[in-house]
Amino acid sequence: MATLDELRAQLARGGQNLRAYLAEIPMADYLHVWSELTGEEEIAIFSSLSPEARVDLMSSLPPRNQELLITDLSGESARHVLEEMEPDDLTDFIQTVSPEVREAVWGRLTPDARDETRFLLRFDEDDAAGIMTPRYLAISANQTVAQALAWVRRNAVEPETIYNLYVLDGVKRLIGVVSLRELLASDDQDRVSAIMNRRVISVREDTDQEEAARTLETYDLSALPVVDTHNRLLGIVTFDDIIDVIREEQTEDVHKMAAMTPSTDRYMESSVWDLVKKRVPWLAVLLLAATLTTNVLSGFESVFVAATVLTLFIPTIIGTGGNSSTQASTHIIRSLATGEVHVRDIGRVLGKEITVGVLLGLAMGTLVFARSLLLPPPVSVLQAATVGIALAAVIVVATTVGAFSPMLISWIGIDPTVVAAPLMATVIDLAGLTIYFLTARALLGL
Amino acid sequence: MATLDELRAQLARGGQNLRAYLAEIPMADYLHVWSELTGEEEIAIFSSLSPEARVDLMSSLPPRNQELLITDLSGESARHVLEEMEPDDLTDFIQTVSPEVREAVWGRLTPDARDETRFLLRFDEDDAAGIMTPRYLAISANQTVAQALAWVRRNAVEPETIYNLYVLDGVKRLIGVVSLRELLASDDQDRVSAIMNRRVISVREDTDQEEAARTLETYDLSALPVVDTHNRLLGIVTFDDIIDVIREEQTEDVHKMAAMTPSTDRYMESSVWDLVKKRVPWLAVLLLAATLTTNVLSGFESVFVAATVLTLFIPTIIGTGGNSSTQASTHIIRSLATGEVHVRDIGRVLGKEITVGVLLGLAMGTLVFARSLLLPPPVSVLQAATVGIALAAVIVVATTVGAFSPMLISWIGIDPTVVAAPLMATVIDLAGLTIYFLTARALLGL
Repeated sequence: MATLDELRAQLARGGQNLRAYLAEIPMADYLHVWSELTGEEEIAIFSSLSPEARVDLMSSLPPRNQELLITDLSGESARHVLEEMEPDDLTDFIQTVSPEVREAVWGRLTPDARDETRFLLRFDEDDAAGIMTPRYLAISANQTVAQALAWVRRNAVEPETIYNLYVLDGVKRLIGVVSLRELLASDDQDRVSAIMNRRVISVREDTDQEEAARTLETYDLSALPVVDTHNRLLGIVTFDDIIDVIREEQTEDVHKMAAMTPSTDRYMESSVWDLVKKRVPWLAVLLLAATLTTNVLSGFESVFVAATVLTLFIPTIIGTGGNSSTQASTHIIRSLATGEVHVRDIGRVLGKEITVGVLLGLAMGTLVFARSLLLPPPVSVLQAATVGIALAAVIVVATTVGAFSPMLISWIGIDPTVVAAPLMATVIDLAGLTIYFLTARALLGL
Repeated sequence: MATLDELRAQLARGGQNLRAYLAEIPMADYLHVWSELTGEEEIAIFSSLSPEARVDLMSSLPPRNQELLITDLSGESARHVLEEMEPDDLTDFIQTVSPEVREAVWGRLTPDARDETRFLLRFDEDDAAGIMTPRYLAISANQTVAQALAWVRRNAVEPETIYNLYVLDGVKRLIGVVSLRELLASDDQDRVSAIMNRRVISVREDTDQEEAARTLETYDLSALPVVDTHNRLLGIVTFDDIIDVIREEQTEDVHKMAAMTPSTDRYMESSVWDLVKKRVPWLAVLLLAATLTTNVLSGFESVFVAATVLTLFIPTIIGTGGNSSTQASTHIIRSLATGEVHVRDIGRVLGKEITVGVLLGLAMGTLVFARSLLLPPPVSVLQAATVGIALAAVIVVATTVGAFSPMLISWIGIDPTVVAAPLMATVIDLAGLTIYFLTARALLGL
């Protein structure tokens, strides 16, 4: 990997040397330090690239950087770059730039590119159709293998992939698919109709991107056809776009788990206000829910006034309860998401988790009992036992609730990633405090 | 999608009807209900499948189910299924089954398959070489395009992909790569040496799987060559295996975030003991860290004995502090993982997060102040103000620590996903309680 310093040294040399250097190193080498470069450096690199490398780089950059480069290019160079970008990348670009840049870009597109872009802009960007390219290779069922192969060779450059050939009827309906491999493995005089696979796996234009990703994964496809309600082929989604969808889905899930409104906006490009908006709603809901603990605690005021030492363990009890419910719920939520566990497995899951909870409870209860006796602050054996027993009980309840809530929420039909954490945090805090002070009342006779 | 009931109705019909039905529906239809089937039903379906479908199904099932099916098959059928499985799938299978089954399977392999499996078993299963297949298509630099194409057509069936052709020298060193598309787009009499790409993107055998995934993604490759230290080609990793790696990585990250030892074992196949082992170490570490709050609280005993109402807000203060640090740290950890944020951005990140913390603190402080005055339990204005001001300060500190810790941990060179959560939970609890009681002392004059 080239370092930023190395790149800057080459930038200083400039001219022919810079061009030769950039032609030698892979694009990822300057792409991964792009955010470090000044606007001038970005333009210096971009203008030293070959025309093809410019297109590749443009397609790989985030919108803000694309905008800078395209507005700096002369009319002719901009036209070339825009013409060569994949139609799906171009559409994304046009959707995200500022209105002024959009207008300037639109004026430089060829009539064909405008038509293609207009077609793609019709679809929702979160649907399968929002990430498809209309550049696929179609053949007809009554062609021979030799004819189809000759057609592929004549059209090998333009489509996004030539490794899947889609067989369309007279009205563009998708009736079969042949891989280039099958075509090559067949005899020249065979008909496409004889070798094509008629059971085509496809998705509808309004299929959610993430569902499209799962379909491509299940069938190990390298490209997935997107059809309209009449089964007419609109375009194809390729595996590289699906990998992007999986990465974005991953980011969204992680954000949801941390009680934030999910988004795939890049951190460094988000304003302070964007960040606040993403976090404030959940933080407020969780805060209001947490204040219910105030009410529960005030019900037990007489208990901890009588034995203030009990107060000292409040954070430990509810913190550990929270940790064990998070462990259980995360495990279950993830297993539900990957399809390893189904809602109907609830009996077996609960059986397992309750047993796990009891074992964890015994271990942690013993640990906290020993710790309380051995280390300061000083507590009596009975007080240490109270904390140990209460903690064990809290862990059993927390593990069970942690496993049960996501299954219940998913059975109702809601995504457990969003709702489980805040709901559980509240339930566990309230239940934990109640268990703790009830145990104290019983054991310490308060 | 076929439902379980539909599948069972067809199973009851059996014989020719079942075979015709299974030939019609896609494999995913019975694969997604496989865990619901009895052993007998599994075998009935398996034995009604075409030989190719058996191989596909076997390669897609988890090890436990593979074992059941393979032990039930007669010698000849088992031999066929094993022979047709992809070498990487077969190696995985052999690594996971019980020793008795392994021995029986080994006895049924052809000498070639044994050699291939022995070769693959040499590599670590977490490395790039652990997921590669040795079945690639190699050509030589001085072939013409026509010769290379004829070679591809004669060998179109066996390799895992024929869409990337690897150019090897006399001692199997990887000197170039040509896509089938480039080959098809070139003239028949061109030499491979003239059209091949000499800057081959490859990974070393001991490259971590996840790094291999990132390389394939960055360059939008459909297959990634794996080479040894002498640049000799060992095998290739294809995009479908990379998608599996990304999914597994996702599961591991989610587990780490919830303070569990990461693993990709399937939940339903994990024993209670597996689950306990995964959770107990972190739970114990977090518990011991949490008990430090006991010591901090005992230092402030005089404060909350004088105003027991302060005790009521302990869970709210530390809970909200925990939530805001989780939000900040998750956002930063994820952005570090995707490469959007680098350790060197620390100045800008901290500037942003401190501002966000102040805004969130003001909002939440006001909210908890209003809530305390308006709803029971009854508190004085000064007490409500203490809670509000302390909460605001805790949120500023928690957000800052939440953003700073993962950057610091990653700068040291440790994966922040594992260490950040427990470390921060402890720091925030201790800092939160200290801030709260210091504020109380100052404002309430205790």
